[in-house]
Amino acid sequence: MPLNTLIEPTVCVVDVSSGGMGGATGHYAKKFDDLAGLYGDTEAFEAMRGDWSERIVYDVSDFRLRSAPGDLAFGVTRMSPGKVGNEFFLTRGHIHKQPDRPEIYYGQKGSGLMLMESPEGDIRIVAIEPLAVCYVPPYWIHRSVNVGSGDLVMLFCYPSDSGQDYEIIARSGGMRARIVDDGANGWKRVENTLWRPRDAATIAALRQQYSDEAGR
Amino acid sequence: MPLNTLIEPTVCVVDVSSGGMGGATGHYAKKFDDLAGLYGDTEAFEAMRGDWSERIVYDVSDFRLRSAPGDLAFGVTRMSPGKVGNEFFLTRGHIHKQPDRPEIYYGQKGSGLMLMESPEGDIRIVAIEPLAVCYVPPYWIHRSVNVGSGDLVMLFCYPSDSGQDYEIIARSGGMRARIVDDGANGWKRVENTLWRPRDAATIAALRQQYSDEAGR
Repeated sequence: MPLNTLIEPTVCVVDVSSGGMGGATGHYAKKFDDLAGLYGDTEAFEAMRGDWSERIVYDVSDFRLRSAPGDLAFGVTRMSPGKVGNEFFLTRGHIHKQPDRPEIYYGQKGSGLMLMESPEGDIRIVAIEPLAVCYVPPYWIHRSVNVGSGDLVMLFCYPSDSGQDYEIIARSGGMRARIVDDGANGWKRVENTLWRPRDAATIAALRQQYSDEAGR
Repeated sequence: MPLNTLIEPTVCVVDVSSGGMGGATGHYAKKFDDLAGLYGDTEAFEAMRGDWSERIVYDVSDFRLRSAPGDLAFGVTRMSPGKVGNEFFLTRGHIHKQPDRPEIYYGQKGSGLMLMESPEGDIRIVAIEPLAVCYVPPYWIHRSVNVGSGDLVMLFCYPSDSGQDYEIIARSGGMRARIVDDGANGWKRVENTLWRPRDAATIAALRQQYSDEAGR
């Protein structure tokens, strides 16, 4: 049905220092307590609760007018530095509900990683520093990790109709890899011993959407 | 048809100084001569040819693996400063072949404008400075203009299946507004006297794709 009005052009100004964005249409924040169950060291998590329970670990400001196919959403995410035990702070992570939708992240401040897992359980890790654009291709579960000593700030952009499935990670007992302090001011990857492979039916349901074109 | 291989995650590093991007899959450059017919002052354009013919006015580095619906393309564009007569350097401009596809631009260096025109001929102008994200909504013809004294560098991102129609502007005798020097180190908008409105059939063909959702 034709409309008489178009969407008006907009400008959103990124505040790299605070990790916010002017003109955002949405905002959410994740407190430490919201992240229960994500970290390997549950004792360390419980021990931190006294100080950290209500503190915001990461927050997201986004601009998204609608969920129509073909449109774009974008925004800024900011994550505090820190560790639970020896595991660096991370986001919940997700795969898109439409799993063939990609996402791009653009580093603005701090040192981060994009931790990605395929439906089959293959892991990829990409460093995100300022001026690095990470292309998370279709079908990859993804989560960001702050491996630096200050805030991690990134821009992101994804197709408006992507949707987010945050449960896919919990259903496998977490992502297959954890990112921990290497004891030498860096990070290393360790295996998540609680990780369970997705079953054949789950993989097939995701994979049936792979198209011939995806490999081009 | 299922594939055995996923697309591999990638990182592209933006070089703000040169306006390039590592890891790009494509690149193109527009020389001064390629921009014949875009500027109002054709005499000034001809007079500049001696010095400028082969010089690159703007160039684009992009990352685009495929044109599948739902995927994303992104890149970096760099435009030199300059004027033809009193009119600031600009890009050819386009509407998307799928006109309901938007685009976002993120200023990295310099002072630019996004000059936008609706099918009906309404003009919007948004300033793009570093840290400003401009959302060009569906159905807007758009072109960027360098109103600064140095390079204009921006990131961009658009749906991979957008396509570009560069001819829509030429068919109307240019965009309705031109951006010229205001004589006081700034810019002003003037009317393009050669501009012709799109006819009702052309507007209807674009508008038939507006959906109820577009206004939400």
